[in-house]
Amino acid sequence: MTAPAAFHELKARLAEISDLSGVSRLLLWDQQTKMPIAGSAARAEQSATVTRLQHELSSADEVGRLLDELTPWAESLDADSDEASVVRVAGRDWEKARRVPAELTAELRREGALGLRVWAEARPRSDFELLRPSLERILELRRRYVDCFEDYDDAYDVLLDDFEPGMKAAEVQAVFDRVKEGLRPLIAAAEPVDDSILHQAFPIEAQERFSHEMLERFGYEEDSWRLDVTAHPFMSNPATTDVRVTTHYHPDSLHSLFSTMHEFGHGVYERDVDPALDRTTLGTGVSLGLHESQSRMWENLVGRGRPFWRFFYPRLQSAFQEQLGSVDEQEFVRAVNRVEPSLIRIDADEVTYSMHVILRFELEQELIEGRLAPRDLPAAWNERMESLLGVTPPTDADGVLQDMHWAGGLVGYFPTYALGSVMSVQIWERMTEDMPDVDAQIERGEFGELRGWLREHLYRHGRKFSPQETLRRAVGGPIDPEPYLRYLAGKHAA
Amino acid sequence: MTAPAAFHELKARLAEISDLSGVSRLLLWDQQTKMPIAGSAARAEQSATVTRLQHELSSADEVGRLLDELTPWAESLDADSDEASVVRVAGRDWEKARRVPAELTAELRREGALGLRVWAEARPRSDFELLRPSLERILELRRRYVDCFEDYDDAYDVLLDDFEPGMKAAEVQAVFDRVKEGLRPLIAAAEPVDDSILHQAFPIEAQERFSHEMLERFGYEEDSWRLDVTAHPFMSNPATTDVRVTTHYHPDSLHSLFSTMHEFGHGVYERDVDPALDRTTLGTGVSLGLHESQSRMWENLVGRGRPFWRFFYPRLQSAFQEQLGSVDEQEFVRAVNRVEPSLIRIDADEVTYSMHVILRFELEQELIEGRLAPRDLPAAWNERMESLLGVTPPTDADGVLQDMHWAGGLVGYFPTYALGSVMSVQIWERMTEDMPDVDAQIERGEFGELRGWLREHLYRHGRKFSPQETLRRAVGGPIDPEPYLRYLAGKHAA
Repeated sequence: MTAPAAFHELKARLAEISDLSGVSRLLLWDQQTKMPIAGSAARAEQSATVTRLQHELSSADEVGRLLDELTPWAESLDADSDEASVVRVAGRDWEKARRVPAELTAELRREGALGLRVWAEARPRSDFELLRPSLERILELRRRYVDCFEDYDDAYDVLLDDFEPGMKAAEVQAVFDRVKEGLRPLIAAAEPVDDSILHQAFPIEAQERFSHEMLERFGYEEDSWRLDVTAHPFMSNPATTDVRVTTHYHPDSLHSLFSTMHEFGHGVYERDVDPALDRTTLGTGVSLGLHESQSRMWENLVGRGRPFWRFFYPRLQSAFQEQLGSVDEQEFVRAVNRVEPSLIRIDADEVTYSMHVILRFELEQELIEGRLAPRDLPAAWNERMESLLGVTPPTDADGVLQDMHWAGGLVGYFPTYALGSVMSVQIWERMTEDMPDVDAQIERGEFGELRGWLREHLYRHGRKFSPQETLRRAVGGPIDPEPYLRYLAGKHAA
Repeated sequence: MTAPAAFHELKARLAEISDLSGVSRLLLWDQQTKMPIAGSAARAEQSATVTRLQHELSSADEVGRLLDELTPWAESLDADSDEASVVRVAGRDWEKARRVPAELTAELRREGALGLRVWAEARPRSDFELLRPSLERILELRRRYVDCFEDYDDAYDVLLDDFEPGMKAAEVQAVFDRVKEGLRPLIAAAEPVDDSILHQAFPIEAQERFSHEMLERFGYEEDSWRLDVTAHPFMSNPATTDVRVTTHYHPDSLHSLFSTMHEFGHGVYERDVDPALDRTTLGTGVSLGLHESQSRMWENLVGRGRPFWRFFYPRLQSAFQEQLGSVDEQEFVRAVNRVEPSLIRIDADEVTYSMHVILRFELEQELIEGRLAPRDLPAAWNERMESLLGVTPPTDADGVLQDMHWAGGLVGYFPTYALGSVMSVQIWERMTEDMPDVDAQIERGEFGELRGWLREHLYRHGRKFSPQETLRRAVGGPIDPEPYLRYLAGKHAA
């Protein structure tokens, strides 16, 4: 059957929106990797203009008219078809884009930009009170944002929906309660491991060569990927055919290897979305949680596993003969899997990591509902750190001021980090049923079949289905913390 | 006095247009320097979308309404004020943007993109007939483009106006007739120079170091400039505070030094536009001719001059001891100023260069007026090469197929290259009246006063005034080929 003319019109409009998204991703990448610093002010204006135009195109009356016309047609099609999916998802996006007045969006962006500047000053001085007025304004704006919506059970659901569409706070709470319960004994049982072998002088050029070798084994190709250096690693892809991973080499640690693998996971998800979805607004990863499932899968389930190092450790040793020549593989793998409660989320190990996230999730719910006043936040943070991880930050710089998210206006983002970890193991378990020899493949440095499985069962769908439906198609059911807890117990309680 | 509200509205709209121009310049720079090749197709769509949106914003009804409202106010102001200039120039831009239907613009872009692909095939095969159908379509579209305008004496004036606003074909013809007459005896008198010392193995890393040293002396600063490698050097500045020069190092020549200086000239013009004009659409160089006056000034009047090498040659010798240790400064300066008629414009010396341009100017006038049929172009090209330069291309690859401009849809662009050379010497002569010791400064490696003079008399104006008025403010009169011919005679007839 032939698509109606309105569908071609809709696609032409979605193509423009997609193009501007890709442009925004390039602006971001360039800003963090190549832009001369004096270009910052002009870049901020350019990014804001592109975002504003994208929002205007996304919420245009004409898009609504086309969607009204196309919905009956789309509902007559196979719901799995690209056409039906494009109309369905575009409808959802349009509804959301129409809800929020342009002035509120602009105010949120302005306040977030300001908040980040204040945070950058407050953190090194460990001065929470300096940040508090910004935080109060952001919470107020976020409440006004919530008020733009209706039909929700929980204010937090509205915020969460921007990052994990369709997920509810109550579901997250149920998952996190179980995770908390499962992690406590693992954390209590963790035994001290000496990982000083990871903190030696490692020449950066050798780290670079090793990172490239590793990525090429994973499936990085020169014609469609880049690897660049930045202060805080991220992945940004101007197109599915143009995927840019960034990393940060430390002269005195091997930390960069894991952050490179992490960002590769984000990159390969984007790279392997079905090209048929290009320029439809569906041609990108479906949620932050599923994105994080992939970054953490490549970082932890692949990159901290014994099979991985069976292949790569001899190569690492020859790259760093002096530093690692006398360290055996088992000792190395134990060091990269060290578990120990610590203060800083981004440096946390696989086991304690989710506790950091749960703490933020609980606090931001209380903040948005007004049950916790910003002035009481530092004390609440420290108490909860003590209760979840048994450590107390000596300063707010090591506590409540460590992340930029809230200062930048992002509330509802944090849980996706732990949801990703949970889902990563569900997907991994399901994959091993189809590929029982995956460990043997990894030991041979072969990742093609693994990537192929992930592409087929997850990556290619892009935004065609909801995150929940996408997960269901990959693993056969809803989010479930049991595989994650089993995996951690199996690996770390041994 | 306070500007009316409509002026603030107009400026907000111009700011968006300026932002998109900067974004386009980043898209171009990235594409030619960093983008993985598989990203090409997506990038073409992104660039087209940004250009289209920019055109929509530039030709919006509301801009016309604001301009109607503001024109009487602007005319009551000092014409030199930023406010009056913004309204005047925005009015001119709006008029032009309204003239050309979006479909014709899109067709020109499409045909130009196709033409470039065909050209890339036709040139290595030296197959003009392969390109001819594209060329015919482009000429037809360019005639339709001309028809969108009225009140012109000469069809070519309309095309030229896109690159050198306000300039007329008849004026160019008058300048070029005098240039032709003046260059003939210089070319006839040119004596053979052995420049084989420039064609040795020059390690690229040493070229890179030397280029940076040179640019830093010129005023390149890490916080607002970049220097990257590309196939065909260009300059592109996402903002006046973010200027990106590119170059191409050849392992067997020092050619890159001159193309780096050339692109620096383009960059410094953009860098030194008055920051008050940022985000007004006036904050950029006023014409291709004046831009080229600056690239050729820094390349030739600075970079091929004896004072420049008095300072830099000892440094160049120590960078390339083996290659240049036994070559004296005089011999080196003579080699970089060798004059000899040749086939390829971009490799031509300072004296013969304008002849290549004049040839193209004359042929494209005949083509657009229908006095020359595309099928007869190769023969006409070769005849004219013989008459202007005394050489005949052995193949069309070395002749009519060497440039991409016509294939890409650009007609009326070429003359700006030679107009720039002419104006560069007018400006230089005028500058030396104010700075009689400029040679002594350059011999000491000091360029700050020179750059300051150029900023004050030329760069800072951006697009505030017409190119003709901008030149008049710098040199006191209209375009004049005599200083250029005097300079070449003085340097090369000696």
